Amino acid sequence: MKKPKVIVCPSPLFLKTLPIKGSIVVVIDILRASTSMCVALGNGASEIVPLESIDECLSYREKGYLIAGERDGKMVEGFDMGNSPFSFMGEHIQNAKIAMTTTNGTKCIHASKKAYQVIIGAFVNMTQVVNYLTEQQRDVILLAAGWKDKMNLEDTAFGGAVAIELEKNGFIPTEDSTRIAMTLYDAMLKDKRYFIKNATQYEQIIGLNIVEDVKYCLRKDLHNVLPIYYKGKLIDALKCSVEKNF
Amino acid sequence: MKKPKVIVCPSPLFLKTLPIKGSIVVVIDILRASTSMCVALGNGASEIVPLESIDECLSYREKGYLIAGERDGKMVEGFDMGNSPFSFMGEHIQNAKIAMTTTNGTKCIHASKKAYQVIIGAFVNMTQVVNYLTEQQRDVILLAAGWKDKMNLEDTAFGGAVAIELEKNGFIPTEDSTRIAMTLYDAMLKDKRYFIKNATQYEQIIGLNIVEDVKYCLRKDLHNVLPIYYKGKLIDALKCSVEKNF
Repeated sequence: MKKPKVIVCPSPLFLKTLPIKGSIVVVIDILRASTSMCVALGNGASEIVPLESIDECLSYREKGYLIAGERDGKMVEGFDMGNSPFSFMGEHIQNAKIAMTTTNGTKCIHASKKAYQVIIGAFVNMTQVVNYLTEQQRDVILLAAGWKDKMNLEDTAFGGAVAIELEKNGFIPTEDSTRIAMTLYDAMLKDKRYFIKNATQYEQIIGLNIVEDVKYCLRKDLHNVLPIYYKGKLIDALKCSVEKNF
Repeated sequence: MKKPKVIVCPSPLFLKTLPIKGSIVVVIDILRASTSMCVALGNGASEIVPLESIDECLSYREKGYLIAGERDGKMVEGFDMGNSPFSFMGEHIQNAKIAMTTTNGTKCIHASKKAYQVIIGAFVNMTQVVNYLTEQQRDVILLAAGWKDKMNLEDTAFGGAVAIELEKNGFIPTEDSTRIAMTLYDAMLKDKRYFIKNATQYEQIIGLNIVEDVKYCLRKDLHNVLPIYYKGKLIDALKCSVEKNF
């Protein structure tokens, strides 16, 4: 049997150079959209509708949705929650429907709609992502959302981390960008302070007062969830049987 | 005095996200355009005209130019030379004018025309590149040409190598992509077989029978030249006094 490929796509700008159709795309926005989506489903939310605009998001309030999202890292005025993983915990999340818009993450979901499937990956659900992809035996594109189309450390490194695990499970890492991401994750494993020393946005993180968020977002396997995009919504693929194509 | 910044731009796709204007852009296409440009000037060529199309290139023959270039790694039929550094050595290069078109390298020169200056960097002239940039004390964008807009190992690694030296000389590495490139070069220094083990195009290199070219292109400081783009031509900035803007 032909072995499936795994590619790290280090920015949405590269999507047009890659064979999306037929692949499973994993959308990665570690700080903080993809982490928060996992936290929400892990805390009992029934669905998350990812939306591109603030106005679309607000229109979901009258349908009984909680409204969440940020622009440039800050909560949108009038929304119920911003983008912090800690705001997706607690009783108000149980069975909640959530409409969410973020600077980078939700855009990537929409840019990937030609894929076979779109799932959400973060350190907090990393093992579930690896297990799911290994079961599916399809080509994989690990899409690092980055920051306004630029590469960032945490999304690229997570892509590298998943590629390393998939290579162990028989996948073929393809494209030089994939090796570069794997090498980056390797360097981060060897130097626990790598991210703090090197992240361009570290000052922004301090300014936004989200150091605790960042620590949380870099922890592995806190939630046994696998958000999958299905008919316009993210739901937990571990709880629902999802048709193969959406 | 404000310290200048250094950015590694890992693909021409990112140019639009970066402050080109006012910066010196270093165009990097290690395999093989930027190496061969250094070799040609190092062997006495008086100028190289980088062109985007094969037809434009051919039109220079009647003006007495040697015609060089490749498409998909192969010499264009009817041209005098392909893209191998070894074809830019010898008596026919002395005082020659060369018109050159390549898959990735010449395109990047044209994409960078809004920069303060455009120079050509390769391992074979690396120290000259670092010295020149250090003298200029301007913001630097190290533009990895990559392969058809995708990232590649050798161009990204060279960007990282120059960024490491410039940081030692007081420049500020900016953007996460810069740290990623620096980390990649560091990994390549630690594992001499990294490139051979990991380069996506290694099979293509074997197929094109250019293993000796690759070995040559990865050697440092073989030529004391600094190709600079000036009035539509690449000339050696070490031999000519060039106005600051073109």
